[in-house]
Amino acid sequence: MSKNLTKQSEDYSKWYNELVVKADLAENSGVRGCMVIKPYGFAIWEKMQAELDRMFKETGHENAYFPLFIPKSYFSKEASHVDGFAKECAVVTHYRLKNDENGKVVVDETAKLEEELIVRPTSETIIWDTYRRWVQSYRDLPLLINQWANVVRWEMRTRLFLRTTEFLWQEGHTAHATKGEAIAEAEQMQGVYAEFAENFMAMPVIKGTKTESERFAGALETYTIEALMQDGKALQAGTSHFLGQNFAKAFDVKFTSKEGKQEYVWATSWGVSTRLMGALVMTHSDDKGLVLPPKLAPIQVVIVPIYKGEEQLNSISEKVQPIIESLRKKGITVKFDNRDTYKPGWKFAEYELKGVPLRIAIGPRDIENGTVELARRDTLTKEIVNQDDLVTVIEKLLIEIQESLFNKAINYRNDHITEVDDFDAFKEVLETKGGFISAHWDGTTETEDKIKELTKATIRCISIDEKLENGVCVFTGKPSTKRVLFAKAY
Amino acid sequence: MSKNLTKQSEDYSKWYNELVVKADLAENSGVRGCMVIKPYGFAIWEKMQAELDRMFKETGHENAYFPLFIPKSYFSKEASHVDGFAKECAVVTHYRLKNDENGKVVVDETAKLEEELIVRPTSETIIWDTYRRWVQSYRDLPLLINQWANVVRWEMRTRLFLRTTEFLWQEGHTAHATKGEAIAEAEQMQGVYAEFAENFMAMPVIKGTKTESERFAGALETYTIEALMQDGKALQAGTSHFLGQNFAKAFDVKFTSKEGKQEYVWATSWGVSTRLMGALVMTHSDDKGLVLPPKLAPIQVVIVPIYKGEEQLNSISEKVQPIIESLRKKGITVKFDNRDTYKPGWKFAEYELKGVPLRIAIGPRDIENGTVELARRDTLTKEIVNQDDLVTVIEKLLIEIQESLFNKAINYRNDHITEVDDFDAFKEVLETKGGFISAHWDGTTETEDKIKELTKATIRCISIDEKLENGVCVFTGKPSTKRVLFAKAY
Repeated sequence: MSKNLTKQSEDYSKWYNELVVKADLAENSGVRGCMVIKPYGFAIWEKMQAELDRMFKETGHENAYFPLFIPKSYFSKEASHVDGFAKECAVVTHYRLKNDENGKVVVDETAKLEEELIVRPTSETIIWDTYRRWVQSYRDLPLLINQWANVVRWEMRTRLFLRTTEFLWQEGHTAHATKGEAIAEAEQMQGVYAEFAENFMAMPVIKGTKTESERFAGALETYTIEALMQDGKALQAGTSHFLGQNFAKAFDVKFTSKEGKQEYVWATSWGVSTRLMGALVMTHSDDKGLVLPPKLAPIQVVIVPIYKGEEQLNSISEKVQPIIESLRKKGITVKFDNRDTYKPGWKFAEYELKGVPLRIAIGPRDIENGTVELARRDTLTKEIVNQDDLVTVIEKLLIEIQESLFNKAINYRNDHITEVDDFDAFKEVLETKGGFISAHWDGTTETEDKIKELTKATIRCISIDEKLENGVCVFTGKPSTKRVLFAKAY
Repeated sequence: MSKNLTKQSEDYSKWYNELVVKADLAENSGVRGCMVIKPYGFAIWEKMQAELDRMFKETGHENAYFPLFIPKSYFSKEASHVDGFAKECAVVTHYRLKNDENGKVVVDETAKLEEELIVRPTSETIIWDTYRRWVQSYRDLPLLINQWANVVRWEMRTRLFLRTTEFLWQEGHTAHATKGEAIAEAEQMQGVYAEFAENFMAMPVIKGTKTESERFAGALETYTIEALMQDGKALQAGTSHFLGQNFAKAFDVKFTSKEGKQEYVWATSWGVSTRLMGALVMTHSDDKGLVLPPKLAPIQVVIVPIYKGEEQLNSISEKVQPIIESLRKKGITVKFDNRDTYKPGWKFAEYELKGVPLRIAIGPRDIENGTVELARRDTLTKEIVNQDDLVTVIEKLLIEIQESLFNKAINYRNDHITEVDDFDAFKEVLETKGGFISAHWDGTTETEDKIKELTKATIRCISIDEKLENGVCVFTGKPSTKRVLFAKAY
């Protein structure tokens, strides 16, 4: 398979699809809309999981596991939730197969379920059905629980990582004694997501709240982090919901307060998914392939020997071994690719495609001179480094690359927030420059829908950093006190 | 809820069911046969996962993720596999719900799948369908891949952890260029499982192979590790399968060898599941609750303050803080339970129920004397320990407890392998003493079936340590060269 990608400037969408497959992140499977996450892609996801899981635990959360299946009737219990979720789902109706007369495998029609089971699209209903048994007294609260799981939402048009029928995610579900605590929790988790996105993915995000029409089904408030991709489209990277007492009321989850009163519990839920993999790709990568921030790169440094014959390889291996050991001691992941089945040029292209942050090349001349050639994936620059200084230089560079990727991304993002005050300019900026448009809005769903219909742009969020300011709605001219962020979005 | 359990001696099965729920390991959900794994139980499973995952990676494996759903037709491709597996499965037939006239949620009959999807009971078929795309040349081999996933096998009679409709597991699926390599891999993974069971779960296991009738559907050889529970019943704790070229042929997975020939790939698969949680419970626990080996205990040491009033609690907390820090520095997990909502006696019973290996109690008298009371969960013994020696004593004790649990279990197991040479003795031992029965067998499935029918005992394995020995089949009197291990099993 050729390593050449379609150029971003030619067709960004095609570039993305090719890159995800060629860099061994994921591929389509024989099951419509379901992806296979390949080992290299999964290794990145595991690094994301490890950091997020650590952050969840540091903020007092525990993991648990709830059933994959949800009885159909559960969805009817929370009225606004059913409207938002219970539609495009995988429905289990039977529990047995059999061989027919010809030995073909067919569904056994006698093994029909009395009540259909839905493969979870999200787990609020089954979890709140469980919390009813777990919560009796104020002493049982707060419940701070997270689950790592697969979920299924039947999608007609799918794209690897960005929109797949099955995806992997985490879903936090918490229960609190007071409204204030629940809101604080939802805001805290938005903060955890933002910190993860910026410090680990090197992806700047805007923290804000969703408008009513973009809110999660069943939520009173949805907190979001919004990122900007290289093609000027926004991507919702994580959401955290304040659910009020909606699910507690639907599933009858009450507790006895310290004062001995029976009260409904307050709820939050929050999640990020394998969609973050798509966001990572579209924040940093280039025409040569992936560019990975060092903190999430499965291989941080690759060493490629340049040699002729076994003797040269042996003398290189000997030199390289203590370097590998010193790097590993520092917690740096190194791969020494001494396969003789591939040429150095092929390997260079391969690790560029896979976004390995640093590449060391070492040949007989380097052995003589006590040097190596060190190449940076993000800038594609090379330098000759003394072997004695190598570990120190690499440590410094990994930090520098992480910062540099974030800075590049935030500069791009900041350059793509455009304040606009009339609708012609709105459409013009959207079509030419893209990115976020900061504009006044009259606060009605009607206007929001109209703008979406005319431009495909949606309100991504009401930024928490947005200051009060008198203005008029970009579409209706009605008075407004705050700008909101519009964009076309993934 | 009372912390008292039914006694093991009264009703072992009831004791188990109560313990799993009361110790907060798991509970039944609103979905028939599907369990909720509660945070405390999940924390143990996470520790198991972490160790196994480390061992898999150390032996060269990578993680990946394959679809939850498998098209029905895939099951027909490997003939013996379909007979063993494709029967009791959850079948997805529709992909949409809708509201009917009354607002009730119903299945949208127009949204019927052309081909039904099966929720994976195991992933050989979907994975080998993928491997066809991944393997072209000998350079692509071996493929050493593992997946952590949920699977569904429709079970009529379920028990928490031991037999549930949905369960969590890992499944390794490897592809090799030669038969020898594949067999070595299957044997290696049996070894990894045995090492994990013995070194982490403190659960002795017998390594062996399965008879033809007990083999995995589609395997040429199944390697197993078999454990013995406290009630004398055996439990299959992990299996590793040599699959020959069956799946490669069924899914047309060929590679070009170094010599340029087209050859079918050789396969293995291997798995352990949340069933291990049940095995852990039934290896060490007692009438007071769980007994956990320190290496898998979510909390290794709990500190319970004995105090009256805030002032006493404060002076205890002050003393305890440096102890906690010293223990954490050593990598020991400590919980200081200073909740004032529960009394010390309640806490003692709670942590006994939950199997915390060591409990420290500390009161005003201890503060005066510079001591604590240290209690061992496994032996229920207590000693007074000087605060200055505490960290050293705890470090030593955690190692000692881990070893002691293993030794106790292996002594019990070894006492329950009974050599038997006639069928009356076979039945007698099975009904009175239980455990493994080491007996000669004529090697036929017919005899195996007959013995199962008459006694419910099955051949658990042909132990790899079994020596050749002339004898006659315990049932038919026909000649045999090796004893095999029979038992009633979970």
